[in-house]
Amino acid sequence: MSFTFITAGESHGPSLTIIVTGMPAGVRLDRERMNCDLARRQHGYGRGGRMKIEHDEIEIVGGVRGGETLGSPVAVSIRNADFANWAGAMSVWDVDEAEATKRRVHAPRPGHVDLIGGMKYARRDLRDVLERASARETASRVAAGALAKELLRAFGIEIRSGVVSVGDAGDPEAAVTWEELCAVDEESPLRAVHRAHEPAMIAAVDRARELGETLGGTIVAAAHGVPIGLGSYVQWNEKLDGRLAQAILSIHAVKAMAIGDGVAASRRVGSEVHDAIFFD
Amino acid sequence: MSFTFITAGESHGPSLTIIVTGMPAGVRLDRERMNCDLARRQHGYGRGGRMKIEHDEIEIVGGVRGGETLGSPVAVSIRNADFANWAGAMSVWDVDEAEATKRRVHAPRPGHVDLIGGMKYARRDLRDVLERASARETASRVAAGALAKELLRAFGIEIRSGVVSVGDAGDPEAAVTWEELCAVDEESPLRAVHRAHEPAMIAAVDRARELGETLGGTIVAAAHGVPIGLGSYVQWNEKLDGRLAQAILSIHAVKAMAIGDGVAASRRVGSEVHDAIFFD
Amino acid sequence: MSFTFITAGESHGPSLTIIVTGMPAGVRLDRERMNCDLARRQHGYGRGGRMKIEHDEIEIVGGVRGGETLGSPVAVSIRNADFANWAGAMSVWDVDEAEATKRRVHAPRPGHVDLIGGMKYARRDLRDVLERASARETASRVAAGALAKELLRAFGIEIRSGVVSVGDAGDPEAAVTWEELCAVDEESPLRAVHRAHEPAMIAAVDRARELGETLGGTIVAAAHGVPIGLGSYVQWNEKLDGRLAQAILSIHAVKAMAIGDGVAASRRVGSEVHDAIFFD
Amino acid sequence: MSFTFITAGESHGPSLTIIVTGMPAGVRLDRERMNCDLARRQHGYGRGGRMKIEHDEIEIVGGVRGGETLGSPVAVSIRNADFANWAGAMSVWDVDEAEATKRRVHAPRPGHVDLIGGMKYARRDLRDVLERASARETASRVAAGALAKELLRAFGIEIRSGVVSVGDAGDPEAAVTWEELCAVDEESPLRAVHRAHEPAMIAAVDRARELGETLGGTIVAAAHGVPIGLGSYVQWNEKLDGRLAQAILSIHAVKAMAIGDGVAASRRVGSEVHDAIFFD
Repeated sequence: MSFTFITAGESHGPSLTIIVTGMPAGVRLDRERMNCDLARRQHGYGRGGRMKIEHDEIEIVGGVRGGETLGSPVAVSIRNADFANWAGAMSVWDVDEAEATKRRVHAPRPGHVDLIGGMKYARRDLRDVLERASARETASRVAAGALAKELLRAFGIEIRSGVVSVGDAGDPEAAVTWEELCAVDEESPLRAVHRAHEPAMIAAVDRARELGETLGGTIVAAAHGVPIGLGSYVQWNEKLDGRLAQAILSIHAVKAMAIGDGVAASRRVGSEVHDAIFFD
Repeated sequence: MSFTFITAGESHGPSLTIIVTGMPAGVRLDRERMNCDLARRQHGYGRGGRMKIEHDEIEIVGGVRGGETLGSPVAVSIRNADFANWAGAMSVWDVDEAEATKRRVHAPRPGHVDLIGGMKYARRDLRDVLERASARETASRVAAGALAKELLRAFGIEIRSGVVSVGDAGDPEAAVTWEELCAVDEESPLRAVHRAHEPAMIAAVDRARELGETLGGTIVAAAHGVPIGLGSYVQWNEKLDGRLAQAILSIHAVKAMAIGDGVAASRRVGSEVHDAIFFD
Repeated sequence: MSFTFITAGESHGPSLTIIVTGMPAGVRLDRERMNCDLARRQHGYGRGGRMKIEHDEIEIVGGVRGGETLGSPVAVSIRNADFANWAGAMSVWDVDEAEATKRRVHAPRPGHVDLIGGMKYARRDLRDVLERASARETASRVAAGALAKELLRAFGIEIRSGVVSVGDAGDPEAAVTWEELCAVDEESPLRAVHRAHEPAMIAAVDRARELGETLGGTIVAAAHGVPIGLGSYVQWNEKLDGRLAQAILSIHAVKAMAIGDGVAASRRVGSEVHDAIFFD
Repeated sequence: MSFTFITAGESHGPSLTIIVTGMPAGVRLDRERMNCDLARRQHGYGRGGRMKIEHDEIEIVGGVRGGETLGSPVAVSIRNADFANWAGAMSVWDVDEAEATKRRVHAPRPGHVDLIGGMKYARRDLRDVLERASARETASRVAAGALAKELLRAFGIEIRSGVVSVGDAGDPEAAVTWEELCAVDEESPLRAVHRAHEPAMIAAVDRARELGETLGGTIVAAAHGVPIGLGSYVQWNEKLDGRLAQAILSIHAVKAMAIGDGVAASRRVGSEVHDAIFFD
């Protein structure tokens, strides 16, 4: 059975729940390393205030014994540290009417799925929609990804990423080396690949914040040590590019993805295109 | 997305975890009714002693607000009431060597998957296998089934079952009516469909127990109010009979299944076979 | 990607189409052997007259080159030898009204899916239903199975089967050895495991035919050389028993299935049950 | 069951085979319209010479009667018009050694999957790889897409596309209206959205051809009449953006995809981003 995962849980509900299937037996897990991934998600210049409240932690409740996977599905729970303040409005069984009214969302927010979700699932309080549609769901994916990375690590495969542009600062088409990605400073405000661009990026975030705006940007991610032959050309839904694309473009607010040279490749002749694969 | 579920969790681990996907929004759930299903699973003449320790309860941690489904995946947790006594041996992270040694399983038990699981997943302590292979996993299925029944109930569909034979007591090919299934006494020792057979069934259980044996039996289950057209003939893996068969024969220790007259039908001519479907 | 298949095609349409995915590269196929499986399906005392018209043959149109699989999906076509007589009524594009009227099915047949299919898919001519619901679809499964058997053969795994009862002749719970299954005479009228029972079985078929009836029966099938560890206990839908049960009970008119002792096991104590697995 | 498809067939094999499942019953199909989609795929300034040989045609062999879908899987065959010239080298059963040697591919081509496929599937003649990895597989997708479009059409949903850049000609980030997409001239050499850019695009193709190069470009595609609520936020693999991304990035040589403003959005503040959705 291939590695996959499924997630559940509302943003202000009691917890997020993740079940990962297809994890082989005998993989040793490092709790600290996995929690670091969750912490990195909560870090970043310009993030909302909520990130200061939560300190997400992976709680494994199935599929692992003594730090080693058993071959059975791995169940992960991430408790909502702020649930006490939401229990009245978000209780599974006994919602407090006054609390629920206070938290009620009448007006669908532009750029969100509030209106569509309310229509599709017949919800009058749009909180019923936005609680699940919230980007907090990405914490579940980070947990699943952290498990995947423990497995990859056993094969010497590493994943790295960094930010190359924010608004008009930086260069969205920057050529990036593996060494540059490894050198990204985890403690830096924006995890910029090119530190020289970071002050301009921070200024761009500050300007957007003053305007009450959000701001786009570009991330580069790469894998190192990947063996030949992942994915397959034999069937459309086994192609690695397509599977990566689904994973990435299903993340909230991600609106474009490129493999290798990607966007720039559209302007080039074949011999000048750099593929996603480098042989050192 | 069609209704399905996935389960995780070891028998003596901290909890079982279930995620049900495809549950529509707006279904009102009855917590008592769902817990009754879990309680029924723990009841039954001749069951092991563990059943007296556990009083399983469904704890929903996602997909439900104020007792109503949201359309998002429903996450259920069933805590292991006995975990305190197993925390040393079964801890996710910090196994106590002395406790683990005490609970270690060296000898594969006949009729169990211990040997095969140990070979497949390379486990030296067969507890790593039997903890997931345990029939306690059926508690997870009962939880998923309890949710499914809440949905079916909204459409006037009911499911009933009862025992028609235990060992050589009772009649495995008994014809059973819907009324007889509805009249099964939930408080009776074996939930026999025909109460007259129950004393003989109990005696058979007692005899088996004295011999240190387990004992086979036959259950009849039926659904009422099912609309025309569930399942489909258009593709082999959409056929209802096949999907039911997978669900039933994937239950621990279930070794045979028949639809309608089933086994008896193999001895009959076509016009004397009663199908699984009755039109009142 | 695991081995699976999907089928298409109507009983009197131009052809059946099967795509098998997950077939590894480098498996040498034996065309004769595969066609023998199709021929066996068409053989059998008491079968309908149509079997004399058709001589099904596997035509592979993808995934194989020079008799060897390429790792890509294997596409199989089985032409309908009788299509010329049905082209008017069953044409994909240009149905001849007179022919279609002649072949039209108004009255749903009891014991068939005609009525249910007509309601589910809103078909007025029930031929639209029965053409796909027809047991001719099993020819597609035999083709997929023949490919699977070529793969299994490369690992020394064999599958054998035979008939142990027809109506009240023979013994549905007969204990059967691998040697007996290997000795089943492919040319015998009913492929009985115990030849001594065959005359009574034939007489039972003759009586049923005189009455205008069909007749039930029991088949035993076994696999030899199966390695330890197929299937898995880690998730309900990976259990081998359940997957086999879906495959078997999705076959037209199959209404019961047992693993190992199966039905008899329901009357026995644990130590007297024979499982499905024999270690020689 | 949701609409999906699976494809089989090698580029120079006897035919491509497609099975589409989840197509509802009662959809009237227009053969001409579907073949037009196949013809459009073969058209385009600068395409290889093979396109002049093939005139692909959809041959439906299952799931359709009298031009109307039956609810059963739809099987499509696209014959290889050039197979006579390849039968010796590509025969399913009896490869002609001399012909096969003539067509043998020893040297993996850069930018293709030849090397990787040969390693993954242990093929010595890389033709075994490239025959399935060939972009001819997109003919199968066009056939599946043509069926999907017949279904969408029944709901008033239309799909349109056009080219906005080729190499450095045109503008990959051009804003495009639905009216402009509808006005794309099907007979024009490159189906440019902005006809004024077409001469420069053609010149770019000519230059690349002289250099023995291929050339990148950008396509805009849009759907009109789409109802609210396709896809879902409830689970990562149901999100529409992600599913579209997998479909698009699994197409040969497609290396980037954006939704709505996409790439440009990465440089903008939130209120200036145009989403993929327009309400007229």
